[in-house]
Amino acid sequence: MTNHEFYMDLAIKNAQAMKGQTDPNPLVGSVIVNDNRVVGIGAHLKAGEPHAEIHALRMAGEKAKGGTIYVTLEPCSHHGRTGPCAVAIVEAGIKKVVIATLDPNPVVSGNGVKILEDAGIEVITGVRQDKSQRMNEVFNKFIVEKTPFVTLKAGITLDGKIATHSFDSKWITSEAAREDVHHLRNENMGILVGVNTVIKDNPELTTRIPNGRNPIRIVLDSTLRIPLDSKLITDKLAETWIFTSERFEKDKRDTLEGQGISVFQTSGTTVNPAEVLQILGEKLVSSVLIEGGGTVNWSFLENKLIDKVVLYVAPKIIGGQHAPSFLAGAGMDKMKDAVELSNLAVQPIGKDYKFTGYPIYTHEES
Amino acid sequence: MTNHEFYMDLAIKNAQAMKGQTDPNPLVGSVIVNDNRVVGIGAHLKAGEPHAEIHALRMAGEKAKGGTIYVTLEPCSHHGRTGPCAVAIVEAGIKKVVIATLDPNPVVSGNGVKILEDAGIEVITGVRQDKSQRMNEVFNKFIVEKTPFVTLKAGITLDGKIATHSFDSKWITSEAAREDVHHLRNENMGILVGVNTVIKDNPELTTRIPNGRNPIRIVLDSTLRIPLDSKLITDKLAETWIFTSERFEKDKRDTLEGQGISVFQTSGTTVNPAEVLQILGEKLVSSVLIEGGGTVNWSFLENKLIDKVVLYVAPKIIGGQHAPSFLAGAGMDKMKDAVELSNLAVQPIGKDYKFTGYPIYTHEES
Repeated sequence: MTNHEFYMDLAIKNAQAMKGQTDPNPLVGSVIVNDNRVVGIGAHLKAGEPHAEIHALRMAGEKAKGGTIYVTLEPCSHHGRTGPCAVAIVEAGIKKVVIATLDPNPVVSGNGVKILEDAGIEVITGVRQDKSQRMNEVFNKFIVEKTPFVTLKAGITLDGKIATHSFDSKWITSEAAREDVHHLRNENMGILVGVNTVIKDNPELTTRIPNGRNPIRIVLDSTLRIPLDSKLITDKLAETWIFTSERFEKDKRDTLEGQGISVFQTSGTTVNPAEVLQILGEKLVSSVLIEGGGTVNWSFLENKLIDKVVLYVAPKIIGGQHAPSFLAGAGMDKMKDAVELSNLAVQPIGKDYKFTGYPIYTHEES
Repeated sequence: MTNHEFYMDLAIKNAQAMKGQTDPNPLVGSVIVNDNRVVGIGAHLKAGEPHAEIHALRMAGEKAKGGTIYVTLEPCSHHGRTGPCAVAIVEAGIKKVVIATLDPNPVVSGNGVKILEDAGIEVITGVRQDKSQRMNEVFNKFIVEKTPFVTLKAGITLDGKIATHSFDSKWITSEAAREDVHHLRNENMGILVGVNTVIKDNPELTTRIPNGRNPIRIVLDSTLRIPLDSKLITDKLAETWIFTSERFEKDKRDTLEGQGISVFQTSGTTVNPAEVLQILGEKLVSSVLIEGGGTVNWSFLENKLIDKVVLYVAPKIIGGQHAPSFLAGAGMDKMKDAVELSNLAVQPIGKDYKFTGYPIYTHEES
């Protein structure tokens, strides 16, 4: 490992520590080194607050002069609350800037580097680039596509089931895996289920870890069948947004809205998943965790709308031709159309195995 | 690692090297050490040939005198082709015997140790016991229960499917995983499928690795629907045994038997899996690999007849409510009845993951 990688890893570690608290901004970390000593560290903590470089420069003070700054994301060139970071770096007398990854937004990418180089500062880019990009996969998608980064999560048996034929599902995975899910919830701005899950399980869909942040609870409900006594309607623990279709019932909508529930209509006779994401994007929801049943999960996969898959696989089997799998619907026609998971990570967690991967779609949409 | 473990590991390694060629006998290895030097190594090579200790004693010759013999399985006390090994060890002047595991057969277990101790030899047991027992899981079951050790194998997607809804299954797993299956076939005396697999895929069910041994091809076929032009009937690459029910057709049986195919009848109107294993045991088939479809796989699982599960899990998903899973049938009623896999090993193989485990049954049989 080079010195550059060593300090960039520290910057990444500090950035990652803020996971879940910077939305809709990216995770960014920064380290300033002068004369082989760390003289400043910083991270972006919260949207509206200073960028990572500014924190690090403030900590370094006079010692920034002549130093090297490491930053996980290209310093910004725009005039935000604290002015462009690239300019602040120039003004602090920094000699060298090491960047993990350029700004993903094509409109501004490279502008920060230009300011620095125009000021005669040496700039090195690409140090720990993959790691840094992965850390901001949500931001990187949202800034370009303006729709949320979608993670599909399921807890399944080794035969792919989410319940027995009698719909018994308690419990498939171990406590450690179920706790891990709450970290996923904490990291996502929205959590999405189908109305059948609400009717069957009456879940809270909250984040049950200390200081956990509750995601917006998003329900797909073509005809507004959601029971008015559902916890999602009554508990007020977090916002609940319902997406419906053209078939919705106006009286029920009015009742729901009277309870403080937001209702959004998509076109068509069933809820259109792409439109749901479009609307969520407009509302600045940059990340959604899908915890649906097989039908909801499939509707997003079929339409190539899932960016990441997280499966908690329990080392057990239950069988059952009619026991529900985590993906239902029609399914792919040919095995060659199977959705492969790339960059797969397999991690033991409790008694279970967590598979994390990124779908590669090759099928033609119907 | 102690010296004892070091030498026992060598004995185990030599024993394991004979995997697939000693049936129906167990894998056994032996090492003789004298004055801190290995003076003899041996392994049981083939049923009817000398036991591991005899080979090692022959290699050591005079140098066995005063030495220590390591043997993975308790030396036998019975008069076989080469006399009881325990007596041979005594006669060779061995001073100390280190044993991994006692004979699993309760009728003779401990008899070998008794002969040795009665002759004044020091005996140590239990060194690398687990490893040695696992190595002979087939033998250990067969010698006690007289029915074959049953391994269920399947290549599945992460959603548990063995084909798409249109029954396309080529290919789920990578070439590396498919090659590994041929090693499994090589290690098993029988390979078992349902007649639907024969009708749909017309497989050869042979071992396609250099010098591979073809297992006996076992087909469950309640009414003898197997096509007479199936490869299993015509190719003569290995024996084919068909198990049928009371509903079989006598003319078809006569035709099949005329082709050199063995036909066995079990009681009832469908093939009874427990009776199949009973009959296989009587024919000295000590191990069977099930490569069935969901219905055959489930019928064995439901009846608690599967001893080991080997799943090749491809990191891909295909969905489909009607796409077949590797376990069909009714399935367990409650999640608490799920069959857990104990001693789970997860091993990357090509792009896939091989899950190997031992079922723990808690459900009540119907």
